[in-house]
Amino acid sequence: MSTRVDEILSWYPTADPRTIGNLRRMLVHGRTGGTGKLVVLPVDQGFEHGPGRSFAANPAGYDPRYHAQLAVDAGCSAHALPLGACELVAPRYAAELPLILKCNSSDSLYVGTDPEPAVTASVEDAVRLGCVAVGFTIYPGSSGRNRMYEQLRSLARDADAAGLVLVVWSYPRGSGISKDGQTAVDVVAYAAHLAAQLGAHVIKVKPPTEHIESDQARAALDKAGVPLGTLADRVRHVVQSAFDGHRVVIFSGGAAKETAAVLEENRQTALGGGFGTIMGRNSFQRPHDEAVQLLHDVMDIHVGTSPS
Amino acid sequence: MSTRVDEILSWYPTADPRTIGNLRRMLVHGRTGGTGKLVVLPVDQGFEHGPGRSFAANPAGYDPRYHAQLAVDAGCSAHALPLGACELVAPRYAAELPLILKCNSSDSLYVGTDPEPAVTASVEDAVRLGCVAVGFTIYPGSSGRNRMYEQLRSLARDADAAGLVLVVWSYPRGSGISKDGQTAVDVVAYAAHLAAQLGAHVIKVKPPTEHIESDQARAALDKAGVPLGTLADRVRHVVQSAFDGHRVVIFSGGAAKETAAVLEENRQTALGGGFGTIMGRNSFQRPHDEAVQLLHDVMDIHVGTSPS
Amino acid sequence: MSTRVDEILSWYPTADPRTIGNLRRMLVHGRTGGTGKLVVLPVDQGFEHGPGRSFAANPAGYDPRYHAQLAVDAGCSAHALPLGACELVAPRYAAELPLILKCNSSDSLYVGTDPEPAVTASVEDAVRLGCVAVGFTIYPGSSGRNRMYEQLRSLARDADAAGLVLVVWSYPRGSGISKDGQTAVDVVAYAAHLAAQLGAHVIKVKPPTEHIESDQARAALDKAGVPLGTLADRVRHVVQSAFDGHRVVIFSGGAAKETAAVLEENRQTALGGGFGTIMGRNSFQRPHDEAVQLLHDVMDIHVGTSPS
Amino acid sequence: MSTRVDEILSWYPTADPRTIGNLRRMLVHGRTGGTGKLVVLPVDQGFEHGPGRSFAANPAGYDPRYHAQLAVDAGCSAHALPLGACELVAPRYAAELPLILKCNSSDSLYVGTDPEPAVTASVEDAVRLGCVAVGFTIYPGSSGRNRMYEQLRSLARDADAAGLVLVVWSYPRGSGISKDGQTAVDVVAYAAHLAAQLGAHVIKVKPPTEHIESDQARAALDKAGVPLGTLADRVRHVVQSAFDGHRVVIFSGGAAKETAAVLEENRQTALGGGFGTIMGRNSFQRPHDEAVQLLHDVMDIHVGTSPS
Amino acid sequence: MSTRVDEILSWYPTADPRTIGNLRRMLVHGRTGGTGKLVVLPVDQGFEHGPGRSFAANPAGYDPRYHAQLAVDAGCSAHALPLGACELVAPRYAAELPLILKCNSSDSLYVGTDPEPAVTASVEDAVRLGCVAVGFTIYPGSSGRNRMYEQLRSLARDADAAGLVLVVWSYPRGSGISKDGQTAVDVVAYAAHLAAQLGAHVIKVKPPTEHIESDQARAALDKAGVPLGTLADRVRHVVQSAFDGHRVVIFSGGAAKETAAVLEENRQTALGGGFGTIMGRNSFQRPHDEAVQLLHDVMDIHVGTSPS
Repeated sequence: MSTRVDEILSWYPTADPRTIGNLRRMLVHGRTGGTGKLVVLPVDQGFEHGPGRSFAANPAGYDPRYHAQLAVDAGCSAHALPLGACELVAPRYAAELPLILKCNSSDSLYVGTDPEPAVTASVEDAVRLGCVAVGFTIYPGSSGRNRMYEQLRSLARDADAAGLVLVVWSYPRGSGISKDGQTAVDVVAYAAHLAAQLGAHVIKVKPPTEHIESDQARAALDKAGVPLGTLADRVRHVVQSAFDGHRVVIFSGGAAKETAAVLEENRQTALGGGFGTIMGRNSFQRPHDEAVQLLHDVMDIHVGTSPS
Repeated sequence: MSTRVDEILSWYPTADPRTIGNLRRMLVHGRTGGTGKLVVLPVDQGFEHGPGRSFAANPAGYDPRYHAQLAVDAGCSAHALPLGACELVAPRYAAELPLILKCNSSDSLYVGTDPEPAVTASVEDAVRLGCVAVGFTIYPGSSGRNRMYEQLRSLARDADAAGLVLVVWSYPRGSGISKDGQTAVDVVAYAAHLAAQLGAHVIKVKPPTEHIESDQARAALDKAGVPLGTLADRVRHVVQSAFDGHRVVIFSGGAAKETAAVLEENRQTALGGGFGTIMGRNSFQRPHDEAVQLLHDVMDIHVGTSPS
Repeated sequence: MSTRVDEILSWYPTADPRTIGNLRRMLVHGRTGGTGKLVVLPVDQGFEHGPGRSFAANPAGYDPRYHAQLAVDAGCSAHALPLGACELVAPRYAAELPLILKCNSSDSLYVGTDPEPAVTASVEDAVRLGCVAVGFTIYPGSSGRNRMYEQLRSLARDADAAGLVLVVWSYPRGSGISKDGQTAVDVVAYAAHLAAQLGAHVIKVKPPTEHIESDQARAALDKAGVPLGTLADRVRHVVQSAFDGHRVVIFSGGAAKETAAVLEENRQTALGGGFGTIMGRNSFQRPHDEAVQLLHDVMDIHVGTSPS
Repeated sequence: MSTRVDEILSWYPTADPRTIGNLRRMLVHGRTGGTGKLVVLPVDQGFEHGPGRSFAANPAGYDPRYHAQLAVDAGCSAHALPLGACELVAPRYAAELPLILKCNSSDSLYVGTDPEPAVTASVEDAVRLGCVAVGFTIYPGSSGRNRMYEQLRSLARDADAAGLVLVVWSYPRGSGISKDGQTAVDVVAYAAHLAAQLGAHVIKVKPPTEHIESDQARAALDKAGVPLGTLADRVRHVVQSAFDGHRVVIFSGGAAKETAAVLEENRQTALGGGFGTIMGRNSFQRPHDEAVQLLHDVMDIHVGTSPS
Repeated sequence: MSTRVDEILSWYPTADPRTIGNLRRMLVHGRTGGTGKLVVLPVDQGFEHGPGRSFAANPAGYDPRYHAQLAVDAGCSAHALPLGACELVAPRYAAELPLILKCNSSDSLYVGTDPEPAVTASVEDAVRLGCVAVGFTIYPGSSGRNRMYEQLRSLARDADAAGLVLVVWSYPRGSGISKDGQTAVDVVAYAAHLAAQLGAHVIKVKPPTEHIESDQARAALDKAGVPLGTLADRVRHVVQSAFDGHRVVIFSGGAAKETAAVLEENRQTALGGGFGTIMGRNSFQRPHDEAVQLLHDVMDIHVGTSPS
């Protein structure tokens, strides 16, 4: 179909042909289809923050189908969601857009010093619900990181056997690193590298800041004269750290913010060679039509049709 | 058979037909059979508190068959019990009443700051012993919650493959929440939601109090004007939080108390749309005939034939 | 063969016929064969204490075959040993005497506040090495007890599928109980009960003292007037706590001690209805011929042919 | 081919014939092939220390194929590497030299008080990538040691079923022992013994120092008059502790150091009966040709053709 | 390593990565390693013609290891042999050179009108014996051909799942064609094509003669003016018939003949673009050193270093 899509798919020579097919589904779907860019809508607020707090204000959101329809209306590449919601949504929406079953989550009735999510779904679940991918979050820097890496490898092996795409959220966080370190450019690059080494097909990280967490990393980067001044520069270093640019790396928008800030961040990400964005709160917490408009604007930036 | 039972069963469209059959067995069995209400007898005191402390006073209780016979005599919907007892009881009683194999338990030789029960039985055990369901307790709010969620998902997948009903005790408890928070209405609603998201067919929670643990939840509930003044109101909110009332949610009686208090609590539960009760210490710690009488009175309340 | 052996075997009606066959092998083997009594030789010092400390003094012990031969020479019912040693010993000795593969162990390079052994062998290993049983230690009272119970249940299921006997060392120890509580009569009885509930065929506990750890247990035992004055009395209560005497419960000798004390302890154990002993340091740390003599004396006590 | 190779292989009578074949592959490959000695190149710096810190200085190293080619150029016995790199390297190099898939690793974004690596690859991965062996690190002395032992046994069983060699890095480290204790001769001997008991075919330990960590071990070794004065003496004791010299024990070079020190250490190791070396930082952190020369010199020492 | 090897491997884009690795092993091994040429030593005369007839002349050949060692001594690319011999040879030689397990064979105690070999080994056997490939003979022209094609497809599926190379001997023979037709150029070309269509990675055929069996084939070849005058011409046509030269096609020497004839045949084969030879009787029925010399001469011809 698209030369760019074929080029991206050639980076996964040992992946199962069905996995390639499912990754192609995401890359050719929606408003950015065929451009090699991805814009994904994730929703797992009910499990993460509780039902009343998430849905009482806008009762339409109690029904998981509202979010799936929003992703369809905006022409997103895919929709990421947890097990319970997926069991309600999949019978209808698996045929409408690619679904990513989010396979681990954290609830907020207990909040420890280090994040350590629970595995709440499996590849077996994703297969029976018709999803094209499984999603999994790792928190490098957490005391519980190793358990997550092991769970991820287990999931990866199952996904490989079932031909599903593996999408990894790699979010450094926990007692091993500072608050600023969570988005430090060396740490984000390391996080992308770890996800690649652990077998991720699509990697999601946060936009990296100028902060450098590790003295040894700073010394090495300084000595080699790696440019890190702009967000675009830093995005470029992160993408290089994932097998020299041969993995799909997308960037999240983080906490809800002003529209202008969201758009500028995406412009820099696109300039640095990022492959798109995954945007939750910045989209579904706005009214439906406003959310669709913002998602469209972001898509235009990534495919290069935005007036900028 | 019964319009109400069929309606309830229609809420589980993706469940295995054998699971539906086993859930139907519980819903048509005993004195409340066909009404859509469940009254269950659970006994696991030997493992939880030790043999001498539990059985020395009434040596009849050393024999697990005493409790199974009590459940039969009272016309309970089902009997929940641990592995060792089940191996003795099942050959005779699996044909007499639905058995729920309790798959995790805690002993009291070590009591930690956060509850974290041991998995002591499996779906494989339940199948070989002829049980219709497996039971599992999760403690949201415990530092060990995630391990429980993962064990639950594993059990759920096995139960699905074997066609067994999944009964989840969802009891918020542990260092993540306050003592009052264990029965706070927002927390109990969250607990019911988590159990539903994790795939429970039948959910057991505690009667919710007026306390609200989370400020964000209070803000959202206040803003939306959700009525929470009476136990019946709160039961209604909890039932709604479990997929808008499309899961069977039953309420426990908690610590042993006066007969009048037990009956009043069940009246409120029934009024709020609860699906019944699971009552251990309040029944089997009384003399046999008194226990049968109390269970009958509670059943009458739930099926609406009580003078009230 | 033996009326007593057949009677004992009748207590396990749901066990796999191969399990029954293997339990029979232990009960008919060696010098106590056919009497319903067991005297077992366990050796895992290399793993537990290190090679130099265990074997430098008597280099013959570097070779695991020395201990297997000792068990043969003394006519023991069985020999318990860890994986590595078993891989060297089994090709020859599995045909000479029943082998119990010890499936968990602790090394002493790290000693934590609560015991939590590592699982170092599996039923699969026991099968390929020709063992008749697997052995597993649980430490009720340890913060890690639940992990052990779960590992034990997993082992039990595998053993059941493979037709192996399950021998459980149930040693209360850890931060949940006092030092004296480790051998308190109520605690040892509870430990035997837990092992029975978890599916053990043969249970090994320590000789119980007069100490009672739990106030609730003391109240219940006092009220019921259970006699606990002599070691024989206490052994009787412990045996009763394991399904009213319908499980094989044997008692260990503990730390190395004088010959007279060893013999007296075994006399009391036999008098109270214990099923024999498992004796490591008190035998293999003596010279070969002295060890054989002591084991013979103990066997004579248990089968009732000792002059006493 | 070689009498010595056949002799070594005879020490593993219960190993799968394919495992023997793969161990033979390592023993007949490369410049030391047929001598019974092994010189292995391990590289997992990207995962352990991060991409920028490891590869920014010499961008050739960003490509894992550089290291595989170095191992070929130097005639190493085998190359050890982690999953992600192996997926890139294996399609070409599995046919060129024996590959050891490193199945656990630690990243440095979180550094706890006790080492506890994550399992990042499996035997299934090793099989699909054409490796001859799996590698695994245990840290006796760590609070997490038991988890590692259990993961190792699980890996060992899978490796046995697939016919792969099991290479164990046994590095005492953690809060259970002192800093000096990590290389104490009694501790290194214990570490080698544990690896043997856990089923390792090839054991890698650090060169032991004269320090003795355990008083009981010192007493036993002193009493038996075991000579420990030279590194060669201590290597001899360590090799004896691994089933009296019937396991392949190789020694690592540790931190980067002067060439002369590396060579002297290897001379002592060879003199004491060590089976070779595994040398990472001391080789691949040098320029290519210098690294090849050093590896050749070390190989000459171990096969006895060095002028010394 | 070799551009030519990589080019050849690129012709198998859907093969399992392990299959590619094993094919690479054959292509980089031995005296022709890296040139894209293969010289294979096959020995299955004992099964096909009987032991005395095959080995009495040179009793060394009674021991299958003689042939494996001959293949090593001569630097062959691989050695093909039947099950029984492989079980003796594999433990040592699988580490020394690539082994091809021959999976079907015919004995000559019964000779039907049409050849129909027995399946005498499986992929499972090849895996447990450490082989890199399975070999299988089909006889197009036989009334039993379809059964062979089906057995071949079954073997191919197993080989694909296990990552083994599939080597197919395609020998037209049987009541469907004339005696001369067995080596007719159109028939050999057809046989090579059938093998390619059935999934062979490496195809072995006989040197084609000028005879043309099919009138329709002759008409088409004549019309197109395909040159078939020399053996080189005909080899070129056969290679072209196997996916236009994108399958490895090697040629057999057939019955024992004079050295000069063997060499000339190989010169023509090399000239016509053949990928090498598989030479049994013409090598192993000569004395050892003479056989090595002949194999070396043939290798030199194929890699183009021969004087002639």
